[in-house]
Parts: sequence; structure tokens; C-alpha cells
Amino acid sequence: MKIKPLGDRVVVKRSEEKEKTKGGILLPDTAKERPQEGKIVAIGEGRKTDEGKIVPLTLKVGDTILYGKYSGTEITVDEEEYLIMREDDVLAVIG
Amino acid sequence: MKIKPLGDRVVVKRSEEKEKTKGGILLPDTAKERPQEGKIVAIGEGRKTDEGKIVPLTLKVGDTILYGKYSGTEITVDEEEYLIMREDDVLAVIG
Amino acid sequence: MKIKPLGDRVVVKRSEEKEKTKGGILLPDTAKERPQEGKIVAIGEGRKTDEGKIVPLTLKVGDTILYGKYSGTEITVDEEEYLIMREDDVLAVIG
Amino acid sequence: MKIKPLGDRVVVKRSEEKEKTKGGILLPDTAKERPQEGKIVAIGEGRKTDEGKIVPLTLKVGDTILYGKYSGTEITVDEEEYLIMREDDVLAVIG
Amino acid sequence: MKIKPLGDRVVVKRSEEKEKTKGGILLPDTAKERPQEGKIVAIGEGRKTDEGKIVPLTLKVGDTILYGKYSGTEITVDEEEYLIMREDDVLAVIG
Amino acid sequence: MKIKPLGDRVVVKRSEEKEKTKGGILLPDTAKERPQEGKIVAIGEGRKTDEGKIVPLTLKVGDTILYGKYSGTEITVDEEEYLIMREDDVLAVIG
Amino acid sequence: MKIKPLGDRVVVKRSEEKEKTKGGILLPDTAKERPQEGKIVAIGEGRKTDEGKIVPLTLKVGDTILYGKYSGTEITVDEEEYLIMREDDVLAVIG
Repeated sequence: MKIKPLGDRVVVKRSEEKEKTKGGILLPDTAKERPQEGKIVAIGEGRKTDEGKIVPLTLKVGDTILYGKYSGTEITVDEEEYLIMREDDVLAVIG
Repeated sequence: MKIKPLGDRVVVKRSEEKEKTKGGILLPDTAKERPQEGKIVAIGEGRKTDEGKIVPLTLKVGDTILYGKYSGTEITVDEEEYLIMREDDVLAVIG
Repeated sequence: MKIKPLGDRVVVKRSEEKEKTKGGILLPDTAKERPQEGKIVAIGEGRKTDEGKIVPLTLKVGDTILYGKYSGTEITVDEEEYLIMREDDVLAVIG
Repeated sequence: MKIKPLGDRVVVKRSEEKEKTKGGILLPDTAKERPQEGKIVAIGEGRKTDEGKIVPLTLKVGDTILYGKYSGTEITVDEEEYLIMREDDVLAVIG
Repeated sequence: MKIKPLGDRVVVKRSEEKEKTKGGILLPDTAKERPQEGKIVAIGEGRKTDEGKIVPLTLKVGDTILYGKYSGTEITVDEEEYLIMREDDVLAVIG
Repeated sequence: MKIKPLGDRVVVKRSEEKEKTKGGILLPDTAKERPQEGKIVAIGEGRKTDEGKIVPLTLKVGDTILYGKYSGTEITVDEEEYLIMREDDVLAVIG
Repeated sequence: MKIKPLGDRVVVKRSEEKEKTKGGILLPDTAKERPQEGKIVAIGEGRKTDEGKIVPLTLKVGDTILYGKYSGTEITVDEEEYLIMREDDVLAVIG
């Protein structure tokens, strides 16, 4: 992938939204207002401190993450959609 | 549990909401606008300072806590519901 | 008491609201919009600085304090009501 | 007086509002939207820095001050009314 | 003058508002929404840093200044009107 | 080019907006609310820290970037249009 | 010129607004919502840091600059109009 996010940003590939539960029940809309799952596909060099030092990110390419439904900005690269967000908008790493 | 919250976040399992007092009286709605009780089931590594050092959390897995009714974001892991919030949103440890 | 407030928070037991002045005159509603009196029943370890050091509180358990009418969050422990607030919301120590 | 304000707060006894000018002219309402005069009757230990050091106040008990009309919180101690405000809300020392 | 402003504040005596230009033309109202001219008549000791050091002011008593029309608070001392404002509200020194 | 942006700002030449996809499909309006692509044509010296040191930018002249649709201010130089924005408004470098 | 701006402020003489393009076409109103061009005629000593050190400005008297249309405060000196603004409101130096 040929995107390099700036600073403390990461690029996230959204996981397929499961609209059915394991048992095959179709989820109502409200149930989907939950954090979303995604995979980190690119990370920035890190946050630049006030003195100009770089603080590397905690996340790594390949991490599966949870993020808030309204986090990040949508971008399209090579006709694929991604999200770009700051590491601080990522809630947790899964698995 | 296989969630690792990022930074100064914790994952909380909400305690059952007691809708009756000890004497069996059903609580009115307003009485439930109180802080909620929960149990810490996962904690982050800690807050990253401006210089990139990690400040570990005070809370530990297993702590029973009080938190504000509107704190945190709901997440679902393995079909169980949890809350993810910042340590600073936790009001107190009980017991 | 078995609550440990987090950080720079304190737990306050509200003093009985005197609805009469010493001379027995019933106070009008506006007169009650004043800061409230209470007693400190539990204190946190102190504020964690940006570098992770703990700055202990100035208040001690047993202090009688004044606090703003809208400060703090109500909590119920063992069927008794308390307020939990940050030390900075406490205006003064009395007596 | 038995109130000890917390941190960088001071307790102020409001001066009698002069409703007449020296020449005996009754002041209109707008003229009273000015800063108020008062006397410092108690001072806090000082502001606690981020590292936990105490920075003492500049004001002393007995200072006559000017403060903004809407500064501070009213408190009643021993049936007398006072104001409690932060030192930074005090505009100037007079005399 | 017997006022000592606190911290980084200055006391300003407003210059007479010229309602006519040099050529004697009466200025319209909008033209008066400009910064105002005044003279510094008293200055504070300076801003207290977070660590409690005093940073003295740049302005001196006697400086003629420009300040924003809505800056400062009006005060009356010995029946004369002044403005009290922070040094940072002063735009420039003239002459 | 004869513009030197101040501080941590960059000058960006907006890439032609592709209104058709590769397959020649005309994009609907909503699809264009995406971050925009552009090329860096000038960069500032860098951010000045609180102590007056200069922290140079990460971006270089010639970088192809993504930026938020509402970032930056439009400027016209020699009858050509550019955007001027802070480095922190740039989301990613491409290619 | 006899104005000395305070701190990190500069005094700007606005360039004549060209209402026609080179080809003589009269610009519509919207086209004028662009940053404006001006010349620096006076600069302050620089920003005072929290510790009281002076950080000199980057701009010099004589620089031709671009600034946002709504930046600065209008001042009139010797019947000429100028703008006074903070250095951070200046977008770029031209030429």
C-alpha cells in the first residue's frame, strides 16, 4: 500500500459489517451504532513533540482494532475505501 | 479476555442493575441516574506522556468501580457487552 | 467506609440543610442557593502529574468544607448518600 | 474568622455600596455595574503547581481590593455574608 | 494615584475622544469603533509564572497606548474614570 | 514560486478533481466529499517552539498529499490558485 | 512611523485592492474573499515566553505578506489606516 499517514495517524481497513449475529438474526439499526472493527494497514512515524522529537505509535500494521463509529476520515486509494484517524481515536486492540 | 484497551483506557463489565432495594422496593427511574457499578476486566498499558513515556494505570483487573452513567463507549466481544472508558472517568474503587 | 475515590477526588457527606436560621426563621428558596457544608469521609491518593508523580491532597478525612451547590456526583453506598467531587471544587475548610 | 479558603482563593467582605456620590447625588443603576470594593478577610495557602509546589498569594488579609461585579461565590458564615473568589479575579489593590 | 493593579494588569486613563478630525470634520459613529488611545497610569508587578516567578511588564507608566474598544473594565477612583486591563489587551505603544 | 509560507504552513496545488472513475463513471456529488489530493509547492521553515527553536516540517516540496476538503485558505498567485494550510491539516503522503 | 506594536504583533499597510484582473476584468465580490496583500510597516519585540524570555519575530519591516481577510484590528495613525495583527495571523511572505 502506498499511503504514508502523517504524524500519529493510522490507515484502517474497515472489517465487513456483520449484519447478522452468529445465530443468523438480522441486527436492528441501533445495534450497529457500536464501535467498528478494522485492520491497521499503514501507520505514521509518530507524534512530533513540542521540541520536535518523534514519539512512535503503539499500534502496528496488522493489528485488529476497535474504533468509534464516527472516528476518522474516509479516503479512497486504488478504488478501495479506507479510514484515516489518529491513534488516540483507536479504542482497543483485539485478539 | 482478548481485548487490550489503548493507552489509559479500561474495559468494564457492568454490574447487574439492581432495580429493587434490599427491602425489595422497586426503584423509580430517577434513582437510577446514579453512578453505576462495574468490574475492571482489562486495562491499557497507561497514558503516554508528551515525551513518550508510559504512566501506568492505578486501576487493576478485578477492581470494582463506580463510574458516571454516561461514561464510556459500549462494545460487544464474544456476544457479551462491555464498556470502554478512560481511567479518569472512573470515580472510585469500592470494597 | 469502603470507597476509595480516584485521583484528586474526595467523598463528601452533606451536612443537614438547615432550613431555619438560628432565630428560627424559615429560609426562602433563594437563600438556599448558597454553597453547601459537608464533611470529608474519604480522599483519593492525589492527582497524577503528567510525568506520573502523585501530588497528595490538601484536604483530610474529617474536614468540614464548603462546596458549590452544583459540584460533584451523587453516589449511594450502603444506602447512604454521598457526593464525590474533585478537590478543586471545594471552596474552603471551616472551623 | 474561621474559614480557610482552598488553594488560590480569598474571602472578601464586600464594602458597603455607596448609593450616593460625595456630593450626595443618588447614583443611577448603570453606574453601579462597576467593580466593587471589598476587604480581604482570609486567604488560601496558594496555588499548587503541576509538580505539587505551593505558590503563595500576593494579596494579604486586610487589603482593600477591587473585583468584578460578577466574581466569586457568596457564602454565609456566622450570619455574615462574604464572597469567595480566586486571586486572579481580583483586579487591583487600593490605597 | 493609589491603585495597584494585580499581576499583568495596567490602569489606563482614556484619552479624550476626538469627535472631529484635524480638519474639523465630525466623525461618523462607525469611525469611532476603532481602537482607543490612552495613557498608562499604573502597572502591576507582572505575571506570575506557573512556578511562581514574576515576569515584569513591558509597558511603563506614562506610555501612550492603543487598545481594543471593548478591552478592560471601567473603574472609578476619586471620581475619575479609568480602565483596568491585562497587558496582552494593549495593541501598541505610540510616539 | 515566490511564496514563503510562515511557520508550519505549506502551499498546496490542488490536483485536478477527477469527476469520472477509471471506468468512466461520473461520480455523484456525495462521493466528492472525500479528502482531496494535491502537491506541495512551498513549505514554511517550521513551527517555532515556545522557547523559540524551529522544528522543521516533515513534508517536502513535491510530495503528493491528501488533505481534508475544508482545510486551508485559498490564495491566488500569478493568477493561479493554491491552498495554504498547516502541516497538521495534511492527512497523508501518497506514492 | 511612530507605532510600536506590543509582543508578537505587526502593523500592516494594506495594499490597494485590485478590483480588476490583469486583463481588465472587474472581479466579482466572491473573488475578493481571498487573503489580502499588505506590507509590514512595524513589528513588535517578539513573544514573551512563560519564563519571560523574548522570542523575536520572523517577519521584518518591508516584507510583503498575505493575511486572512478577517485578521487584525484597524487602527488610524496620522490619518492613515493600518491593520495590527499577531504574526501567527500572517499566512505567507511574497516575492
